[in-house]
Amino acid sequence: MFEQFRSIEEPYLAVNEEQARANISAMALRFRDKGIAFRPHFKTHQSLEVGRWFKDEGVESITVSSVKMALSFALDGWKDITLGIPFQPGQAFSVKEIASLCHLNLIVDDASVLPHIPKISRGTIGVFIKINAGYKRAGLLWTDEDAIEKLLLDIKTYSHLRFIGFLAHDGHTYKAGSREEIRSIRQISDQRLGHLKSVFNAHNPIISVGDTPSCSLNGDFNEVDEVRPGNFVFYDMQQHALGSCEINQIAAAVVCPVLAVYPSEGRIIIHGGAVHLSKDMYQQDKEMVFGKLMLFENGQLIEPAEAMFVNSLSQEHGMIYSSLENLKDFRPGQSLAILSAHICLTVACQRRYSIGAGNWTNVI
Amino acid sequence: MFEQFRSIEEPYLAVNEEQARANISAMALRFRDKGIAFRPHFKTHQSLEVGRWFKDEGVESITVSSVKMALSFALDGWKDITLGIPFQPGQAFSVKEIASLCHLNLIVDDASVLPHIPKISRGTIGVFIKINAGYKRAGLLWTDEDAIEKLLLDIKTYSHLRFIGFLAHDGHTYKAGSREEIRSIRQISDQRLGHLKSVFNAHNPIISVGDTPSCSLNGDFNEVDEVRPGNFVFYDMQQHALGSCEINQIAAAVVCPVLAVYPSEGRIIIHGGAVHLSKDMYQQDKEMVFGKLMLFENGQLIEPAEAMFVNSLSQEHGMIYSSLENLKDFRPGQSLAILSAHICLTVACQRRYSIGAGNWTNVI
Repeated sequence: MFEQFRSIEEPYLAVNEEQARANISAMALRFRDKGIAFRPHFKTHQSLEVGRWFKDEGVESITVSSVKMALSFALDGWKDITLGIPFQPGQAFSVKEIASLCHLNLIVDDASVLPHIPKISRGTIGVFIKINAGYKRAGLLWTDEDAIEKLLLDIKTYSHLRFIGFLAHDGHTYKAGSREEIRSIRQISDQRLGHLKSVFNAHNPIISVGDTPSCSLNGDFNEVDEVRPGNFVFYDMQQHALGSCEINQIAAAVVCPVLAVYPSEGRIIIHGGAVHLSKDMYQQDKEMVFGKLMLFENGQLIEPAEAMFVNSLSQEHGMIYSSLENLKDFRPGQSLAILSAHICLTVACQRRYSIGAGNWTNVI
Repeated sequence: MFEQFRSIEEPYLAVNEEQARANISAMALRFRDKGIAFRPHFKTHQSLEVGRWFKDEGVESITVSSVKMALSFALDGWKDITLGIPFQPGQAFSVKEIASLCHLNLIVDDASVLPHIPKISRGTIGVFIKINAGYKRAGLLWTDEDAIEKLLLDIKTYSHLRFIGFLAHDGHTYKAGSREEIRSIRQISDQRLGHLKSVFNAHNPIISVGDTPSCSLNGDFNEVDEVRPGNFVFYDMQQHALGSCEINQIAAAVVCPVLAVYPSEGRIIIHGGAVHLSKDMYQQDKEMVFGKLMLFENGQLIEPAEAMFVNSLSQEHGMIYSSLENLKDFRPGQSLAILSAHICLTVACQRRYSIGAGNWTNVI
């Protein structure tokens, strides 16, 4: 079964370009058909090269989650960027620099930061009001119309700022137990944001939302003008567990060498730990696991005869428990592919890619 | 309470050099007094500069957990390095390079990898047999004397390899419920490894162990010739929860700007998420949390009036729940210090430091 294999030195992240491009294309098409603007979140891939795959699909507007990312993509020629975390005064210096390179949108939910948004020499900085439409992380509560109106009017007193609309992130879809629950969260959010849109229609607000589960499951986007999903470019096992994707749509995997094999003790150890995969988990058959094991075969990833998962993680080591029968052909030095629980964090751990020639060919 | 503060742009890792040096000095002294060699694990800090603080304490031998780290420290002048993960054939190229720069020890538990260890032009490569003394991760079972003897004799057939001894890592101390349990794990491991030492005494094996909890709690090291703790250089909240350190011995913190404040909803949001802290956790009052909040005051870290913790994490955001009274003075842009659950993973997330002038002064 593993007579021949090429040994790699250390774990690395491999990307299936063909599949990632297919994921981008499908999502872009879905929202083009609906007439909804597509402003994908680049925090998942954080890569200038992968960014160009989006350009090839006609994408011109993006979302990022840090000023460093914003600057990096602005310097690479992106002309319309939303910084998807609340603006705070420490970002002022870089915000001025980014806004000199491209059109920049910020999100705010607190008037105290407005005087710190830098003036720019030409044009305006777009401002979204962040709305908490149910996720209970950042944003003004969708019911708090007085506070929203006050902030909106405050924004309008600054001539270099332009109020754009209401932005929400329904991150609670990631905790949903079923596709129906994801669609229900989307539907409720759609109604809440639709209500705000009508209350403040004199200000022509746009509604921006975005989470991969509800975008993938094609929920209700009746009131939505713009979507910002990110994860779908690669997908991952959490998304698979949610029902957002099929296994073969997952376009990034961590290639890990086997370090040690103990079939009689029911485990193998891979070089692939928390610093390579992240410590995020997903539920598989009532157990929490860190990733799913796949085998390389002829430029494809295939499932082993019996499903295997990364059951335990330390800094550099991953432990995979299975039966003697399933483990007896593994050897130290062999290369495996791990589909991680949460690819956004795995990418942040790895910070670079090996991109295959089309599919998984040549990634090892 | 926070009238004046300096806003930072994005989260970064700050180190209290004075405290880190005190931690190094205390651990070096403890094992010097016992006549036990001190070979600290550099996977925690991964920093050439912090490495020099160990040199200042007379440390000459180190442990690392990847070939990249080994190469980096060898190029910085370290002359005696143990690569603390099992050797696998994919490491051969770099192992040859590292062994040309310094004395290198490898660990093995499978004879199939021995032919792949490269020959070197002068000297020998040291080889430890990895022993599973109870942790059940890597290594031959301490009871499996036949397999150990066979591997030992195999190693001895290679003229460029030199058998050094038995190496174990009792990582289960990290899951212990009390200091007594940590000491008990150490005592059992000491007896098991002592037994192996006597069985194979014709080969003069050394015994190498190392985990910060048992090294910090000064357990039984009767049979031990060398220790390899790593975490103690900075310590963290997991170590504090285990009883390995006091809060004021923790020498690294992530400086995080506040992004948003919702006192009436009982939470604030910091820029400080899974990509800055890692998703590792520790138990605090029966809840799992990601870190402990501290305030900067006159070059010191002080506790807020009411203890506060990072209760929830997404990629870039940390959520901290507390009472209205406790939250009302926080402002967007203010800088806080978070003592993370597991500093080794936090360091791997951050990859660079801001080192204070002695203590916490000047880290913001």
